Amino acid sequence: MMPTEDIYQPLLNVIEFLGTFAFAISGIRHAAAKRFDWFGGFVCGVAVAIGGGTLRDIMLGVTPFWMTSSIYLICTFMAQMFVIVFARSLKSLDNTWFFFDTLGLALFTVAGLQKTLDCGHAFWVAIIMGTITGSAGGVIRDVLLNNVPVIFQKEIYAMASIIGGLAYWALVELGCDMTISVITAFLLIVAIRILAVKYHISLPVLRGEE
Amino acid sequence: MMPTEDIYQPLLNVIEFLGTFAFAISGIRHAAAKRFDWFGGFVCGVAVAIGGGTLRDIMLGVTPFWMTSSIYLICTFMAQMFVIVFARSLKSLDNTWFFFDTLGLALFTVAGLQKTLDCGHAFWVAIIMGTITGSAGGVIRDVLLNNVPVIFQKEIYAMASIIGGLAYWALVELGCDMTISVITAFLLIVAIRILAVKYHISLPVLRGEE
Amino acid sequence: MMPTEDIYQPLLNVIEFLGTFAFAISGIRHAAAKRFDWFGGFVCGVAVAIGGGTLRDIMLGVTPFWMTSSIYLICTFMAQMFVIVFARSLKSLDNTWFFFDTLGLALFTVAGLQKTLDCGHAFWVAIIMGTITGSAGGVIRDVLLNNVPVIFQKEIYAMASIIGGLAYWALVELGCDMTISVITAFLLIVAIRILAVKYHISLPVLRGEE
Repeated sequence: MMPTEDIYQPLLNVIEFLGTFAFAISGIRHAAAKRFDWFGGFVCGVAVAIGGGTLRDIMLGVTPFWMTSSIYLICTFMAQMFVIVFARSLKSLDNTWFFFDTLGLALFTVAGLQKTLDCGHAFWVAIIMGTITGSAGGVIRDVLLNNVPVIFQKEIYAMASIIGGLAYWALVELGCDMTISVITAFLLIVAIRILAVKYHISLPVLRGEE
Repeated sequence: MMPTEDIYQPLLNVIEFLGTFAFAISGIRHAAAKRFDWFGGFVCGVAVAIGGGTLRDIMLGVTPFWMTSSIYLICTFMAQMFVIVFARSLKSLDNTWFFFDTLGLALFTVAGLQKTLDCGHAFWVAIIMGTITGSAGGVIRDVLLNNVPVIFQKEIYAMASIIGGLAYWALVELGCDMTISVITAFLLIVAIRILAVKYHISLPVLRGEE
Repeated sequence: MMPTEDIYQPLLNVIEFLGTFAFAISGIRHAAAKRFDWFGGFVCGVAVAIGGGTLRDIMLGVTPFWMTSSIYLICTFMAQMFVIVFARSLKSLDNTWFFFDTLGLALFTVAGLQKTLDCGHAFWVAIIMGTITGSAGGVIRDVLLNNVPVIFQKEIYAMASIIGGLAYWALVELGCDMTISVITAFLLIVAIRILAVKYHISLPVLRGEE
């Protein structure tokens, strides 16, 4: 998805697989908490894993990325098997899921940014599309589960994508090499998400009108 | 929607009309149970009748099918009139709605499969698109009604589409005539749905983690 | 968005800004009532301001309008600042928001109609797209907030768009000048919405089956 040198490609593939796996796990676990059946769990897993990128591709007017390679559905299927077999052990791996999910957020954001720029759109459009790529899948999951989307109330999640996107923009404008800009944005998103969770940082809540 | 001989076309048109009518009835009845007004009922009817095919066409990058022929909206309008006039008698026709709805599920699945193959996509993409064509409208209805989607918790519905699609794939790979493959897949979907309801067959529920 | 004489353009721009601002305010206020954070509020504001037009553009197969000009996001950002700073005073301006929102409904409906006709679609498709442009953003807001969409239960809102669209169609068929037809449809939508609220006019509710 990103124009990088061949040396990075295997690493990117690993991160993409781990991120997709963690995203799918998140959808399936939320579905299990609502007593969904296996089909409902799979749909929620797919929604998180590919929902954001699909929404991005529809708005960009290109074929949704998962329709050209079956790896994303196979990865979701493996996540589904994992949840079914290891249901009781999932919670003890929460730190692992959090870390893979954060890698996924960072990679999908940067990939969405890059794909939007490649389509010839402005940088501010690319930042929005990067954020959608990373975060919209979780919103679709919450809508399907009839929950209020968690990223609108509690978590610093999409803000990490937005700040990473702004940093990428700034670095490119300052004449930085694209590979360095991509890696910096990626690491910044990972760092913001980890620090926000570690130190319980959240955005201010909108005041009511009572 | 399907390349079949002229002798089948009138039959297909009748099934398509009955299926669209039953899908729309399903949306309007659910809306009535939530005390929606006439406009809300019509939107829910439309959502079930054309929602799945619209999502499929958007992902395929083609013009949504209902924008080129007014028959689908006219059919929904007739369903709306029917629900308003015969509200008290709808329940006694439940077996009729179930049968028409099952015909619709089977036809829309096969039509979605075929349209996706005609666009040059792989068979596994076509099976997903066939399932979306048959099932996504009901999910959109449940999201609009603020309900948990019923096909994720209770019913064998989308699974019938998936199995029908897999059978179609197997038959084509085995060198079967396309018309025979289509009819077999259609009848298989109808049979699975009827048997699942008659014998209360459902998928396993995902285990919680407590 | 509409082929009008240059003398109208500044007026149209002002109405579009006020309408977008009022639509965004509506999303952000609903988000505040659910204790969303600043990011969630912004997303809900954006959803109302651009959601309907985005859905229309995706179905028309054109680039979503907001991706070619940053004015819509800037307008939503200003609405967000306004809600944060003047939270306590918003309620006293309810009549102002209602009036701007009604101007927005009328303008977005007519703009959606016109854009769909320009894409070569039939008039009945254009009326649906005009209604979606005006109303779908509010539905997306309610889905994101996990509420039942208000326009399906209580308000004459989308019906004003539909009647305005039908009037436009009739006038064009009768050979009226396009500018006169547009202005008539616009004023009719504004009048229906104001009269419906003033006289508590609503659509009949669908009868249940008990």
